[in-house]
Amino acid sequence: MIMRWLSCLLLPALVLAEPVDWLLTARYVVTVDARHQVIENGAVAVRGDRIAAVGTRSDLEKRFQPRRRLDRPQAILAPGLINTHTHAPMSLFRGIADDLRLQDWLEKFIFPAEAKNVTAEFCRWGTRLAVLEMLLGGTTTYTDMYYFEETIAAETKAAGMRAVLGQTVIGFPVADAKTPDEALVRAEAFLKAFRNDPLITAAVAPHAIYTNSDETLRRSRVLANKYDAPLLIHLSETRRENDESRAKRLASPTQALSALGLFDGRTVAAHGVWLDDTDLAIIRSKNVGIAHCPSSNMKLASGIAPVTKMLSLGINVGLGPDGPAGSNNDFNLFEEMDLAAKLAKVATGDPQSVSARQAFEMATMGGARVLGLEREIGSLEAGKRADLIFVQVGKPHVQPLYHVESQLVYASKASDVSDVFVNGRQVVRGGMSLTLNPAEVLAKANAYRQAILRSLPQ
Amino acid sequence: MIMRWLSCLLLPALVLAEPVDWLLTARYVVTVDARHQVIENGAVAVRGDRIAAVGTRSDLEKRFQPRRRLDRPQAILAPGLINTHTHAPMSLFRGIADDLRLQDWLEKFIFPAEAKNVTAEFCRWGTRLAVLEMLLGGTTTYTDMYYFEETIAAETKAAGMRAVLGQTVIGFPVADAKTPDEALVRAEAFLKAFRNDPLITAAVAPHAIYTNSDETLRRSRVLANKYDAPLLIHLSETRRENDESRAKRLASPTQALSALGLFDGRTVAAHGVWLDDTDLAIIRSKNVGIAHCPSSNMKLASGIAPVTKMLSLGINVGLGPDGPAGSNNDFNLFEEMDLAAKLAKVATGDPQSVSARQAFEMATMGGARVLGLEREIGSLEAGKRADLIFVQVGKPHVQPLYHVESQLVYASKASDVSDVFVNGRQVVRGGMSLTLNPAEVLAKANAYRQAILRSLPQ
Repeated sequence: MIMRWLSCLLLPALVLAEPVDWLLTARYVVTVDARHQVIENGAVAVRGDRIAAVGTRSDLEKRFQPRRRLDRPQAILAPGLINTHTHAPMSLFRGIADDLRLQDWLEKFIFPAEAKNVTAEFCRWGTRLAVLEMLLGGTTTYTDMYYFEETIAAETKAAGMRAVLGQTVIGFPVADAKTPDEALVRAEAFLKAFRNDPLITAAVAPHAIYTNSDETLRRSRVLANKYDAPLLIHLSETRRENDESRAKRLASPTQALSALGLFDGRTVAAHGVWLDDTDLAIIRSKNVGIAHCPSSNMKLASGIAPVTKMLSLGINVGLGPDGPAGSNNDFNLFEEMDLAAKLAKVATGDPQSVSARQAFEMATMGGARVLGLEREIGSLEAGKRADLIFVQVGKPHVQPLYHVESQLVYASKASDVSDVFVNGRQVVRGGMSLTLNPAEVLAKANAYRQAILRSLPQ
Repeated sequence: MIMRWLSCLLLPALVLAEPVDWLLTARYVVTVDARHQVIENGAVAVRGDRIAAVGTRSDLEKRFQPRRRLDRPQAILAPGLINTHTHAPMSLFRGIADDLRLQDWLEKFIFPAEAKNVTAEFCRWGTRLAVLEMLLGGTTTYTDMYYFEETIAAETKAAGMRAVLGQTVIGFPVADAKTPDEALVRAEAFLKAFRNDPLITAAVAPHAIYTNSDETLRRSRVLANKYDAPLLIHLSETRRENDESRAKRLASPTQALSALGLFDGRTVAAHGVWLDDTDLAIIRSKNVGIAHCPSSNMKLASGIAPVTKMLSLGINVGLGPDGPAGSNNDFNLFEEMDLAAKLAKVATGDPQSVSARQAFEMATMGGARVLGLEREIGSLEAGKRADLIFVQVGKPHVQPLYHVESQLVYASKASDVSDVFVNGRQVVRGGMSLTLNPAEVLAKANAYRQAILRSLPQ
């Protein structure tokens, strides 16, 4: 009798405590949801590859029975960062040719180095190095434009990272294709191979308007749409690109690409430095996502993208570090957030331009929208993929802490990231990779360095 | 007979192996000497507070008999970084009021927060927090403008750090002085107390032209010269400062200060954003050092200082993070180096503007020249003070390594600093402070946070 009475009391509690795979708790949970909720003493419950719930620690502890838990009382728990533009395997060329004019950089270093060194195997190790750095620094999704993307995809997947990977289509012979036709064939095989992959979104990446024929550009769009895949392209990165387009086509690159139908489908355009008001209206009406790359645009002296205006128009803007061989030297979204905010302020003369909140949103939900993945990633909300990061806030450079978003953007560093989950799987624990072997990757990177140095013109 | 013969052979070797306190070895030694030598498998010998020799590891191992040694085969050994402008105790206000217009920031947050919270004890703990962060991040010398500088000096010295500390002189009542007269009296006592100190250079810091009377400015200069001390001042930080000076004085701030005799002696001018060619000619002829603060100038939307032009004119330029309460959020010279190079490139449209070498020089020898300490610090050369840092280059974000200076400026982070020596004394070992108690400092910072939040207008 007493037992039955007790079980009546206990049963509801047991029934309510749903099993989950993980309960993650932190000092603050930054959701980046529509209301920009920041939850003090917060928690996230994860079941399988998805977020089951987000709330206060005390509430979620009542509701869920976790199989495992991770408590980081000195950390912020936030959505994983989203890189919307890079060239991952170029990690092996990191800093090989800095402080040069674009033409010298390309013609004396990058093109010869690529011609002599880029193979599938190069891309394998370059990707491992890049993915290792990105995961350790809190990036959970990246967007790539390079060669041998099927190898890049296999390595990214093996490391447990999410990515949108664009097979390059370009009008001259490159490492993995002698012609654009060959590149398009490769791209289609890649799109087929990774259809419906939980981590990899295969994409088509015609390099730019000035390196492809109109015919190749159109065929790239048709191919992307056939597989409902994104198209990735460089757009108005330099003034020269714009000037040449206006001279040759009597139209800006955006106007010309739009007329070619290039934006009729999911599109991610990198840079957008020289977009004017007419271009921005097109970008907005076609729902083209912009990958803003402040480090690269500053370092190569390309110019300053009109990001404040883009955001006020409601254009989707994400962040990208670009490649680490000249344009930048690392894959560090904490630096891109900080720079995006600061560059917008000095460019507009308005310290309120691009707030910490907006910069953090660009690195998370903004990036997700740019990639067309906003229903899957970019915020901590029930039902979304469990891509999340812990950022430690116990060190001197982040104390005292008054405003969580401000601290994340202006004070936190990639090196403060302690734990990373992608698709419900922990891939970094206490600053250590769980899916890659750093010693092996670094030894191989050094071997490539020696081969690359030997291959350069003396 | 055999013994005597042996001793003849051994004696010269023993005589040559001079005793030193430290032999420090690294994969690369970046000297920042006149020839910008980078020594592979290099070493530095330290005797007492000075560098005894710099050379290859094999050479220095033959020449010296070290009492202790530190071998970091995966690191760069470089001069300690020099911060030429900050407000250290404001660490306790880190990020309290970001993304605001200057007037709102000052009037709604900083002035009320300072009025209610800044005491000698506040400066003690704020300095400890700042010095802890700076030392861990590779800064070995900093330059301050704040209140209660004698407390700041005592704490800095106790932590084993070098600094140029300017007692603020300002035309309205502040935390440590009701009048400029009182501030000048405090400043003189401070100059006397720290005369000939091995670590502390006491200075006079009239805040700016627009916050002091001409009389106070002149008396500040006279006082500084009496003690052969530097004078620190904010100069042409905002367009408004320039416009007001031109309206009121029919002269730019630089012209007006020069006419007042303010530059007739060692002077460090912070910012210099709005200096024109006439101003730059004055700055150059008076040998005024400029503390360039790229983060602050971007974040507050102050403008872009003409650094490329300053360097081409041979003006001494150093770097400063400015204060961490609005202008910036940390004391991170790795970020200031990176930004100084990138900002100059995008501002001039020339990717060759401010190279990695020039940026690293600004953070070391350039800073030393700005402070008038170029014979003592700023480079690794025999006879100089032993202020040096080890920067680890074994992690994924700094591999592979092609160019040492490029990597230091564009890829290395403050968190890569493992070991720091100031004046021959090791103050950071393996990323841990040897002179401050982080747990105590952070607990106190958090207590101040709560008091500061209570003091703010609701």
